[in-house]
Amino acid sequence: MNRRIVIVGGVAGGMSAATRLRRLDEDADIVVLERSGNVSFANCGLPYHVGGVIERRSSLLLQTPESLRTRFGLDVRVRHEVVGIDAAARTVEVRDLDDDTTYVLGYDELVLSPGARPVRPPLPGIERALSLRDVEDADALVAAVAGAHTAVVVGGGFIGIELAENLVHRGIRVALVEATPQVMAPLDPELASLVHDRLKASGVDLRLGSAVASIGSDDVTLADGSVLPADLVVAAIGVRPESGLAKAAGLRIGERGGILVDDRFATSDPHIHAVGDAVEKSDALDGQPALVPLAQTANLQGRLVADAIMGRPVRGRGVLGTAVVGVFGLQVAATGWNEKRLRGAGRSYRVIHTHPADHAGYYPGAVQMALKLLVDPATDRILGAQGVGEAGVDKRIDVIATAMANDVPASGLAELELAYAPQFASAKDPVNMLGWVASDMRDGLVETIQWHEVADAVAAGATVLDVRTEKEHRDESIPGSVLIPLDELRGRLGEVPSGEVVVHCAVGLRGYLATRILEQRRGEGSWTRVRNLDGGMKTWLAGQYAESPSRP
Amino acid sequence: MNRRIVIVGGVAGGMSAATRLRRLDEDADIVVLERSGNVSFANCGLPYHVGGVIERRSSLLLQTPESLRTRFGLDVRVRHEVVGIDAAARTVEVRDLDDDTTYVLGYDELVLSPGARPVRPPLPGIERALSLRDVEDADALVAAVAGAHTAVVVGGGFIGIELAENLVHRGIRVALVEATPQVMAPLDPELASLVHDRLKASGVDLRLGSAVASIGSDDVTLADGSVLPADLVVAAIGVRPESGLAKAAGLRIGERGGILVDDRFATSDPHIHAVGDAVEKSDALDGQPALVPLAQTANLQGRLVADAIMGRPVRGRGVLGTAVVGVFGLQVAATGWNEKRLRGAGRSYRVIHTHPADHAGYYPGAVQMALKLLVDPATDRILGAQGVGEAGVDKRIDVIATAMANDVPASGLAELELAYAPQFASAKDPVNMLGWVASDMRDGLVETIQWHEVADAVAAGATVLDVRTEKEHRDESIPGSVLIPLDELRGRLGEVPSGEVVVHCAVGLRGYLATRILEQRRGEGSWTRVRNLDGGMKTWLAGQYAESPSRP
Repeated sequence: MNRRIVIVGGVAGGMSAATRLRRLDEDADIVVLERSGNVSFANCGLPYHVGGVIERRSSLLLQTPESLRTRFGLDVRVRHEVVGIDAAARTVEVRDLDDDTTYVLGYDELVLSPGARPVRPPLPGIERALSLRDVEDADALVAAVAGAHTAVVVGGGFIGIELAENLVHRGIRVALVEATPQVMAPLDPELASLVHDRLKASGVDLRLGSAVASIGSDDVTLADGSVLPADLVVAAIGVRPESGLAKAAGLRIGERGGILVDDRFATSDPHIHAVGDAVEKSDALDGQPALVPLAQTANLQGRLVADAIMGRPVRGRGVLGTAVVGVFGLQVAATGWNEKRLRGAGRSYRVIHTHPADHAGYYPGAVQMALKLLVDPATDRILGAQGVGEAGVDKRIDVIATAMANDVPASGLAELELAYAPQFASAKDPVNMLGWVASDMRDGLVETIQWHEVADAVAAGATVLDVRTEKEHRDESIPGSVLIPLDELRGRLGEVPSGEVVVHCAVGLRGYLATRILEQRRGEGSWTRVRNLDGGMKTWLAGQYAESPSRP
Repeated sequence: MNRRIVIVGGVAGGMSAATRLRRLDEDADIVVLERSGNVSFANCGLPYHVGGVIERRSSLLLQTPESLRTRFGLDVRVRHEVVGIDAAARTVEVRDLDDDTTYVLGYDELVLSPGARPVRPPLPGIERALSLRDVEDADALVAAVAGAHTAVVVGGGFIGIELAENLVHRGIRVALVEATPQVMAPLDPELASLVHDRLKASGVDLRLGSAVASIGSDDVTLADGSVLPADLVVAAIGVRPESGLAKAAGLRIGERGGILVDDRFATSDPHIHAVGDAVEKSDALDGQPALVPLAQTANLQGRLVADAIMGRPVRGRGVLGTAVVGVFGLQVAATGWNEKRLRGAGRSYRVIHTHPADHAGYYPGAVQMALKLLVDPATDRILGAQGVGEAGVDKRIDVIATAMANDVPASGLAELELAYAPQFASAKDPVNMLGWVASDMRDGLVETIQWHEVADAVAAGATVLDVRTEKEHRDESIPGSVLIPLDELRGRLGEVPSGEVVVHCAVGLRGYLATRILEQRRGEGSWTRVRNLDGGMKTWLAGQYAESPSRP
């Protein structure tokens, strides 16, 4: 009899495993068991089907059980739920959800790719809240949208934000309720604040730092007592690994609730393998367990587990968690660790904020983005990067993620040869610029101060020196700052404040030039330490808004 | 007296050097001598100003001598041409082009960044041909465009193509004359043929393999006798390093005509340095001298030479030559070596063609691109990459260039964690896909055949097996090919031709699946060697068109 490989879960990881297994072994008996009614569907497209951007439901169904049988000889069974694993007997118990019968299926190798399930907090009325995980969920949302005028989306993560945008696109008034002070946890607050601005400007009623108290029949009550109208409520608070089945089978589960696997995706039972959102990955930076529920990772792991089962050389790598999301025309992307996490872990780091244009400023249509790079000051290693902007952010984060995964130091970004023509990039690409700033900081050519450190520095006696133009200073300035425009600085060194000086401009570039002048002219005045405000006024303002979200 | 650093050439490399020098040394006496009337202008924007895309001439002038004096304390002299170098005396002889006087200027360190000059072949009438190097040239072209209805652009490189597009944009009937059988030398012919299609579809009268015999007062005569109307003629045949001054000063010049420098950008005279288009670079792959006239490289070298002069650690790296150009809405990008060059150098290589979409096919607006990857079969090293498509090509080439410069093997592209959301990419990114194909080839899972090898294989007895659908086969097929649709292949193994089989589909994916089936079912029929047509029908067709440019 042919070897039987049973796969639990027929979307990204599971289906990548199944098709790769077939390419490697025409003879294997490959059975895919999927609880929902569809396999190989475009789960990352679901919010856009709800919004009508992806018009036809059929576009979401990349394959069907029939097409998979025809092309890959797979035995794909939808609405078949695995309800138990007998690891000793190497069998699974399967429930056919249509006729509610169960049967036992033997396996030689078992692959678990059950994914992650949306968190549903135990709130009064939570049963009315919809979630979005599979095509059936999308169907329910599409149906609910039809009669709805108002919606509350609970949770400001990737799915919550995508749903908020798509519901607005459907003409619905949307409130987005997020328990923490910011949306998009992978971002640090000063970058998240740019996303907040965009959400508000797009008509979303953004409620940050707000807990839901209860869900009523046509509204949602927040902990602060405010009541939001809600013909429709969506819970998008996050996901948890679907590891119950594995746990019940006695497989090892990690501290974060994911299935534990080795670097060949074997669980604690050598004939049971697991991939995708349900498993704990190893973080690329510190090697610690991490939950990274991303489609790209699941697809890659699906392919690798097939190789592992076929005895081919495989070694799973640490995971950076590179991700991007669209927010009303903004690209929001990140890779690696953010500052919050580095601070929380007590790691030392250097921060760089820039605001480059996506392409040459002299070519029409250039738009400014915000980039943030985190660097290990001891080793020059890139620890993480984030970006927010209307164009070209995905490209820069992809390049940085590629550099990061291959141990290119931060200063090495300066030397990357990236494709330049004025409509696509700049001769000094934003990624190169980050590298130059990193190397200047490494070499001690400039010392910077972060947006959240300015107030303390001023309280301790530092003076803020604005080197922008008079007009810029008049329009908006940091309270208490002194103005000497950069182009006049060399001639007005006598006016530079004494003691500690925080230099700033709009984005950090003129401030850097001024800092270099003052560093070299030390002795011609009574200033002491000189620091350039990293990211300039733009980052400082974004930071102020992040700290008092109600302000702008 | 302060140290004087004289810089010859005030655009990319020269101005990057000057400003970096100032940031490192407030006291240096920095003099920039520029022969043209402008410094720090956007040379890559010139074609787009000619086309009216960049409307205002002032947009091209990123800095002026005045702004550079004010901000950087630079002594910038435009229309001052250095006509001689006395290396022993450490002086340059400078001609003021406005009053035609000359003077001698001493230096402690001299930086040569004179760039490259357009090649002007000794054709009858060449004096009427305009070229495009500086703002004055752009002015002349703008003036000439005003009364012109027809134009001939000679040369199908980056500038020639950009000019052709911009002249069409101005409503001019344009013929593009290229002496070789293809435009865009960095591309291999089957990718260049996609550019040819776009040029023709955009109304350009494309004359490949055509030499210009003479330029008349209102026309251009080709070597084949055809006469093209030409109110305007532009010569964009290529550029040569502006190394005459260096040569006259006795500095070492390379075989390719560029100034020779060490990895700190010193010429054969330790007080004379050189950067940018005028110098020979070291090729990243084989370490041999190379001419790479690219703005990004010049900017990077300008910064590095400043560091070198200031005694800072610097080590120039080999150059990949990553580049991109826009062609009537197409992005055309490349990095590293192409197949022509590898073949010419007698190197062994593996070729991979793919045709992925720029983002998930189920999300609106996805467009297909053509990618080509060249791999060292012995080491899995990436040797080069090319791409042509309407979107997302620049991103993929940047990622591959980053991988390549940091010794990521071709199969390692599979493991890059790239940012995915359906409007930006695919869960299996085009770069990941290239990595998977590379690893399958490395592991012997599939053997491929190239578009230009099919005819010989058939002549030697191979049969072409089309595994597409009946409709696809009917619409267009490779002559003599036999059809067995992939989805029927397992049930029709008895019909598979005997002997050598060349499997093909539209882009190579179904062909790969069919190849895997036939590889594993060997023995159930009389087929022998099985090869998948790399890039499928799409690459094969592009190759046919490349070989007979007149055909489509």
